[in-house]
Amino acid sequence: MTELLARRNAAFGAGAPLFYEHPLHLVRGEGVYLYGADGKRYVDMYNNVPCVGHANPRVVEAMARQQATLNTHSRYLHEGAIAFAERLAALHGKQIESVILSCSGTEANEVALRMARFATGRRGILCTNATYHGNSELVSALTRLGSQPSPNPAVRAFPFPETYRPIAPNLNEAQLCEAYLAQLAAAIEDLERSGEGVAAMLVCSILANEGLPDIPAGFMERAAAMVRAAGGYVIADEVQAGYARTGHWWGYEVTGFTPDIVVTGKPMGNGLPLAATAASRALVEGFRAKTRYFNTFASSPLQAAVGMAVLDEIEQRDLRGSVAAVGAALKAGLRARQGASEAIGDVRGHGLFIGVELVTPDGSPDVELAKAVINRLKEKGFLTSNAGIFANVVKIRPPLVFGHEHAEAFLVAWDETIAELAA
Amino acid sequence: MTELLARRNAAFGAGAPLFYEHPLHLVRGEGVYLYGADGKRYVDMYNNVPCVGHANPRVVEAMARQQATLNTHSRYLHEGAIAFAERLAALHGKQIESVILSCSGTEANEVALRMARFATGRRGILCTNATYHGNSELVSALTRLGSQPSPNPAVRAFPFPETYRPIAPNLNEAQLCEAYLAQLAAAIEDLERSGEGVAAMLVCSILANEGLPDIPAGFMERAAAMVRAAGGYVIADEVQAGYARTGHWWGYEVTGFTPDIVVTGKPMGNGLPLAATAASRALVEGFRAKTRYFNTFASSPLQAAVGMAVLDEIEQRDLRGSVAAVGAALKAGLRARQGASEAIGDVRGHGLFIGVELVTPDGSPDVELAKAVINRLKEKGFLTSNAGIFANVVKIRPPLVFGHEHAEAFLVAWDETIAELAA
Repeated sequence: MTELLARRNAAFGAGAPLFYEHPLHLVRGEGVYLYGADGKRYVDMYNNVPCVGHANPRVVEAMARQQATLNTHSRYLHEGAIAFAERLAALHGKQIESVILSCSGTEANEVALRMARFATGRRGILCTNATYHGNSELVSALTRLGSQPSPNPAVRAFPFPETYRPIAPNLNEAQLCEAYLAQLAAAIEDLERSGEGVAAMLVCSILANEGLPDIPAGFMERAAAMVRAAGGYVIADEVQAGYARTGHWWGYEVTGFTPDIVVTGKPMGNGLPLAATAASRALVEGFRAKTRYFNTFASSPLQAAVGMAVLDEIEQRDLRGSVAAVGAALKAGLRARQGASEAIGDVRGHGLFIGVELVTPDGSPDVELAKAVINRLKEKGFLTSNAGIFANVVKIRPPLVFGHEHAEAFLVAWDETIAELAA
Repeated sequence: MTELLARRNAAFGAGAPLFYEHPLHLVRGEGVYLYGADGKRYVDMYNNVPCVGHANPRVVEAMARQQATLNTHSRYLHEGAIAFAERLAALHGKQIESVILSCSGTEANEVALRMARFATGRRGILCTNATYHGNSELVSALTRLGSQPSPNPAVRAFPFPETYRPIAPNLNEAQLCEAYLAQLAAAIEDLERSGEGVAAMLVCSILANEGLPDIPAGFMERAAAMVRAAGGYVIADEVQAGYARTGHWWGYEVTGFTPDIVVTGKPMGNGLPLAATAASRALVEGFRAKTRYFNTFASSPLQAAVGMAVLDEIEQRDLRGSVAAVGAALKAGLRARQGASEAIGDVRGHGLFIGVELVTPDGSPDVELAKAVINRLKEKGFLTSNAGIFANVVKIRPPLVFGHEHAEAFLVAWDETIAELAA
């Protein structure tokens, strides 16, 4: 382990992110399980990329068959790539017609932001103050800004809406919604005053990196309307929220708004790099006319075959139904335990994406406890991580094939962990 | 075909790039061959991504085996990813120690440019006036600037060095080198005067998109020294030039300079999205400290297994040797034909990357002839494309497994084509 870590620090440079106090050396995966080099089995409750399960046989077969048949760039005609783009667009409402495929959420968010900029002739971008959408220079200018200005002068952050640590005390939900909308209005006004104007708002549909807050009712729909009234486009980042994660195809169905542009990524290829930016045909063609966009590895027969296999698995195994049922049971189980320990401040989320907010006795974020819980759960064979603006939210986001039996086993380990660390 | 095109225009939006007057509908590939839906066989003389051949069995096997075993993100320890990064770094000189893996040349160039900016504290980027390095907002600000300013105020383009259409008349090669270096010096000075300063020069090591010009001797090495004297880093884009394309591992070995940062991409995964930014450990760690860079699909066990299989194929089949021999024979064959038609202005290139400059009787670029030649060669079963600042250069860049027999067959088709179109 020590030697492997030293080799890793040399080969990748020290500072390449690594989970857990004692990093996990993995050698195999199958379904919801991951196996360590020491033979130990873990229930994977973190990974959304292998959404239809680690080593999913249908995906492996599709990948191998296509790579053994044909895999080229997209400047030739290929039926598979076209059919996949058609199928993807059809999973949205009628405002989504055409698709630009790429290789990562970063690339897909780059396309979305530039598409909105070209279409509006304006440059201003709105985002929340605790988000992450990717790692290019443009997209990373939106990363976890807090109350700091963005390195990009055309980016404005507004406080993400939540009911747990509300922006102002003693408000009912409707008033709280207004208070957050006023913050967004101020950001819009500031962009307009600066001369940048509003090109787009880019938000994760379920505010995943913000810690999956309960959003005051109506906020997302009204925020979208405000952005449109300012002439901007609404971009839903469905990289984490999409592909049945919430028990619905898309997170925006759950939080109640209609995006103009949708970005998808992580789960699309079950591990193959695959992402997409989907919008109206007019928006897509406007972007293409400006850029002659081409992406060497994207829209390939390989992406298409693997992407189709993932959609087949989700549909034929009714993973939406399974996620809704198992997710509801797991969330109910965690909520039932909320009273048992003062440390559990809140249990939130949708489908198989649940956040447990851990707090000190005075209600402050307890990031040390969150880290301890995550490391203890790992020792007990359950892999989670932490998230949220204070990193004190235990993030539960297993492959979609996670079942009731795994949820029940997890709750036993959870009870033991809380008893040991936060009784 | 018409119906498939209409579906494609709806699904991807009209304007998604497509080759040839009558687009090619492909269904299968094997080695250097691609097969159309009509059963016709083509010799692929364009694609560098499937560098060890379409449907390469070793790559297919490695891909399927790893995807069936384990494929996760990189925040766990995995021996394969580390070993691949070590092997990649070792293919360069000792100044290259550590690697950041990503999914595309665009992502890898983003990393390289931001790395240089963080390390220098300056923002200025130098590039040639006819280049292309990728499609993100930052990287696309370098695209084919000609004599126009970049949309990014910190980017300066200088005229790419060449001997065929030199920047000034009646100079010998040494004088010409000085003339081009003076242009670079002016760009550096302009960046310094603007207050941006020099962070980096980003150049394709063999100036591929510029049309593979013959570069005045000594230019690249002296340009690199000038950039370093201004405090900047030298970034070699080896996305096209690298991986034995020239008969050497790297293009910079052929054009004679030593980069501080090397970007690789296209051929690395034989079709799997895979790219890398390699540099000194200090540069890489400086970048990681500033960004906590994480790339969901990169440094995965899948990228590692496939990347290793590609390197194994290149080494065990001695493709460097084969590329050097076949490329030299093909270039000699084309050069021998230069006198046969006035239309062939120049034959240039390295290894299996050859450009044939087509010109009108007065020596002007003949882009219409280039298009006609490319379409006629396709009818005859040979796939090429066009490149260069005027798009009049026939671009020949086959998979590395292209052999003497393919070169000989191509020269027959070439002779027929030139006789038919440009006799």
